Formats: sequence, C-alpha cells, structure tokens
Amino acid sequence: MVDNVFRLKNPNLGPHDYLYHFGISASDDLPAKFGDVKFVCTGGKSSRMKAFAVEMYEKLGHPKNSILDDNNKPKDIGESAGRYSLFKVGKVLIFSHGIGQPSLSVALNEIIKLLHYAKCTTDVKIIRIGSSGGLGVEPGTIIITDKPHNGMLKQEYNYVVMGKDLSIPCSTSDDLRNRLVEVAKKLEIPSTMGNTISAEGFFEEQSRLDGAFCEYTNDDKMAFLRRVHDEYGIRNIEMECTCLSALCARAGLGCAIVCPALLNRLLGDIVDITPEQVTLWQNNSFRIVGECIKECLEA
Amino acid sequence: MVDNVFRLKNPNLGPHDYLYHFGISASDDLPAKFGDVKFVCTGGKSSRMKAFAVEMYEKLGHPKNSILDDNNKPKDIGESAGRYSLFKVGKVLIFSHGIGQPSLSVALNEIIKLLHYAKCTTDVKIIRIGSSGGLGVEPGTIIITDKPHNGMLKQEYNYVVMGKDLSIPCSTSDDLRNRLVEVAKKLEIPSTMGNTISAEGFFEEQSRLDGAFCEYTNDDKMAFLRRVHDEYGIRNIEMECTCLSALCARAGLGCAIVCPALLNRLLGDIVDITPEQVTLWQNNSFRIVGECIKECLEA
Repeated sequence: MVDNVFRLKNPNLGPHDYLYHFGISASDDLPAKFGDVKFVCTGGKSSRMKAFAVEMYEKLGHPKNSILDDNNKPKDIGESAGRYSLFKVGKVLIFSHGIGQPSLSVALNEIIKLLHYAKCTTDVKIIRIGSSGGLGVEPGTIIITDKPHNGMLKQEYNYVVMGKDLSIPCSTSDDLRNRLVEVAKKLEIPSTMGNTISAEGFFEEQSRLDGAFCEYTNDDKMAFLRRVHDEYGIRNIEMECTCLSALCARAGLGCAIVCPALLNRLLGDIVDITPEQVTLWQNNSFRIVGECIKECLEA
Repeated sequence: MVDNVFRLKNPNLGPHDYLYHFGISASDDLPAKFGDVKFVCTGGKSSRMKAFAVEMYEKLGHPKNSILDDNNKPKDIGESAGRYSLFKVGKVLIFSHGIGQPSLSVALNEIIKLLHYAKCTTDVKIIRIGSSGGLGVEPGTIIITDKPHNGMLKQEYNYVVMGKDLSIPCSTSDDLRNRLVEVAKKLEIPSTMGNTISAEGFFEEQSRLDGAFCEYTNDDKMAFLRRVHDEYGIRNIEMECTCLSALCARAGLGCAIVCPALLNRLLGDIVDITPEQVTLWQNNSFRIVGECIKECLEA
C-alpha cells in the first residue's frame, strides 16, 4: 500500500483487542479520538507527565482536539486502569511509563497498538523525557541520547521469548535528535548529545555503592564509569532507552531520549539535590521538547 | 554478634543515606518509626496496596504503631517522592512496586535498606500480592509460588553489573508458603501451590499473540505453554517473582508470592474479566495474606 498510514505487521491484531493497562478498547472509535496524533511523549512519573500535559496545553494554545476533564484540564484517560497515566493534548499523546524496561515495554506495546488502531500516520515521533545520572557532565545538563547501550555495552535491547534470547537493535532519529539540540541552543539551556546506558536497576546495575548489596570497591566502580565515559562516549545512565529505541525502530517509528543529568556520577552516588533543582531541570527538558514539538507542528 | 538484628553486609551504608524513591532519610530515627516491622507486603498497583493497607488497619484492630493521615487512615509515606506508595500499619509495612523487575528492584533495595537502618529483626517476612496469568488453572485460583523461574526456565534472577552477567539463586520460604496454603484451605478460597515464571514483559515475553509484535504462531505458543506446564510445573506467569525471591534470599529474609490467576493462558490471551471479578479475586489474596499475618502476629 502506498499511503502513509502506520500499520503493525502482527496478523493477530483486531477490533476485539483491549489495551488492558490503559483501559481502552480497540473497538472504541480510536481513529476519531487519536488519529491525528503526531508526537508521543513519555516519562517515568505520572505527576511529571501530568505537569507536561498541562504545560503543552498552554503552549499549544488550548488546541481543540484535546481530551479534557470537568475542569477543562487535560484528562488522565488511563486512570481507570490504575497503572499508567495517559493524556491527549492536540496532536500530542503523553503517557507515564513507570520505572524500568519491562514497565515501559508493557505501556509502549499498548501505545504502539493504539497508533495502529487509530490509523495514525507513519511520521509519528516518540520522545522520552526522563531523568538520569550523568557521567562527566555538570548536574542539570540535558543529555540528548545519540546511541543507546545496554548494560553489556551493546546497542541492543534483549529479552527472552519462549525460552530464547531475543536481541533487537536500537536507534534514535537523526533528524529529531539534531532538532532537539538546535532548540536547546536557541533556548540557551545547557545540553549535550551523548551515548546512554540503560540499566536494569538503580543500585548495583548502575555501579552504585549504596544499594542493599555491594560486592565491589569504589576503585572498581570508578574504573568502569571512566571506561564507559572514555571508550563508549557514555554521558548518562537511565533505565529505559534501549527498550524505547528498539521497539520504536522495530515499529518503524522515530524516537528521541531527553534526560537531565541529576548528578555527576564521576563525583558521587547520592542524589541529594533539592526538589526545586529537580523541577527546574525537568522544566528545562520540558521546554526543549515542547518548543521542538511546537515548531514541528507549525512548520 | 549473637542477636537477631537484621544487618546488611554492605560497608558503604550509613546515616548520610537517603532512600530517594520513597523520600526517607536514613538519619530520620528509623528504629523508632519502623523498628517493630515483622511483615512487608508489596504489589504492583498503588491503589491496590492502599486498599490492602486500609483492610489490614481494620483487620488488626487499629494498631497504635501505625502511621496515619489527618483522616485517621493509613498515610502514604512515599507520596512526596512520586514513585511508589508506602504505608505502615502496626507491624506491617506495605509498598507498591510498579510493573516489572527493575521497578521492584529499585523499591526493594530501598525497603531492605530501611529494615537495616531501622534495626528490624532477622525474622521479617516479605510477601508479594500480585496478579498473574494462570496455566491450566481455573481463573480466580490463587497461586502460591513454590519455585520462581526466569524466562530461560532457570531458578535464578539475572542482571548486569559493570558489564558482567550476575546470577542470584531464587527461593521462597517453605514455612510461610505452607502457612499460606493452610490459611487458604481454612478460608475455603480456591488456591494451589505451583511454580511461577517471571517474564520481562507482558506480550511476547509471556508468549502472547496480541502484542505490537508477534513472529510466532499459536501452535508455537501452545507448545511452549504446555511444555512449561507439564515439564516445569509452571502454574502462572507474572513479572517480579525471581527478583523478589533472589534479593530476599540474598538478604537472608524469607518471602512468599501470592497471585490470583486472572485467566487460563492455555485457553486464550485476552484479560477480559470485569473489574468486579478482579476485585473479588484480589480480595481473596488479601484475605489469605491478611489472615496469615494476623495469625503469625498473635501466635
């Protein structure tokens, strides 16, 4: 077919489907409700994604094709299912994904199916706005991911299907990444492009010394962090980028990952910044992504 | 030392620590607040764990050593951090862990550190009250996990630390498991003991046909599900049991996993039960765990 409708190749999908973790039925006229979506934004915390939805609703000038609650604010469409938040603000879909790749994988599978059922176009872009620990960068720097790496330092997302290891290559969108870097420069927000490790946890999995368990020394930790910084160009560690970029690439959708570094892991492990600092840095990532989306939608 | 105080062996832990994802400081007199904890209960959804906290507060007769909000209901102590819920009802600590092993790993590391800083006793038991897909069991049956298995059908939890695969053996508490089975029988709630697979996602990772992607047939799926049912005694699939049982065993804490089967995967993939049915079955798992804890605390 020579049109630009986004289609998944799974032959088992159909109108009987139910997006269980968001409480949405595939038979619920999704093309009318979601067919105009052009950007999907996601991040871990529900409260943060709600704040982003409210900000985008203002920034885009109260677009008509938004789903609102009784107070004329973006409505959490996913609330009834009790797992993830979901908002629709104009052509922007916004959802929370919780912590870690399995949590993101569940939500992202259903969101990608939603784009399929809604007959969205193939140029939908997906942007994760997260948080991360930086390597060799000033705290507060916004890291725009170039190449996502798993914990084994390979650019792939791995999971087990029917007793066998599956490996899916990761990639982010060149065009979107470069646009985000340009917007950050324009807004004069400290940012850098760099490679990112997606870890399977927060403590040992990110070489931290202060988890419940630690069987290595500070020297071991520093040697590893310096090595991935120097040899692999790693500038931050978070917990979702290989899953996001692999599943998007597999579906043929462009994606980007934008995370402030909340600390410089080459100097310590403890995240001891004030809530105000976190909010400021997160607002900086919101501003970059929001401005980039606005420019794209108005182009 | 010949006492019964629970201690982690990590030499890096100290009063400067901050349990970032719950918003609790290690210097905040944790022995006075949490030193009497004997049971820790956890499950994915925040709303479900809150309902369990409220139910336990009634069941245990409004125990004095609870942390309450302004309405004299169990207070969500974790709310300010915006990631997980946390409640204290008498000697029972209750937290939500989100979806998947990385999300649980982050929370469980901090909860185990909390037990250490609070100088709890070594006999604290940890119980996951989750949800799952059953294999060859009637929907609604409560599955009490005997042996947790990973997706490769090994009884271990795997994660990558500084570029190397780590494998931690899994085990659940014989005594606690048997007590839970006895209580279920006494309450006449349909239940069974069986082995459990912890998957890294909900769709392909659990051999479902209806994810965004599917490159195998229904015959492949059925052959795999029948094989793990027949050869490995698998009775349900969820997403957290190897992480929970491995980290608890590593810390020297007994644990159990109690999940209703929301469907029989040998008959289909779609979870299409009513919210009322889910609530009834979850209440059955609450009743078993609640009654078991009450009996233990009164013994």
